[in-house]
Amino acid sequence: MKISAVITLKKDVLDPQGKVIHQTLDGMGFKDISEVRQGKYFEIDVQENDPHKAKEIVEEMCKKLLANLVIENYRIIETK
Amino acid sequence: MKISAVITLKKDVLDPQGKVIHQTLDGMGFKDISEVRQGKYFEIDVQENDPHKAKEIVEEMCKKLLANLVIENYRIIETK
Repeated sequence: MKISAVITLKKDVLDPQGKVIHQTLDGMGFKDISEVRQGKYFEIDVQENDPHKAKEIVEEMCKKLLANLVIENYRIIETK
Repeated sequence: MKISAVITLKKDVLDPQGKVIHQTLDGMGFKDISEVRQGKYFEIDVQENDPHKAKEIVEEMCKKLLANLVIENYRIIETK
């Protein structure tokens, strides 16, 4: 079962990479943007058929390795 | 209106970064993983209240800047 996780920077943490993308898009003519924030995305194929358990496993991975909880949040976003 | 986009590598493109994460998780005791693939995530705040139009704008950004369509796919995943 495939579980996806999104890691984003916390609200108050500066995102210079997102800012550069914002400026670049602005320079390309996309003028109506308020903010761009970048994050990481992981698609993990877990050998577990129970969606609830599979999500728990991925959550554990986020806590232990994928996310730096001091500055980042994680979100399990979908199940296929 | 915030629109999120996920950029992932196409199926047949190797993902060495995902592979390393897979190996690391395996070494940490997460043995039941079949595959890990990494991608990029963008949260774009567009000054446009029509969800349909906002999505179209973000799709345009993906095509023109955010995704390399030769090796990557994009997906507009959610609307807040």
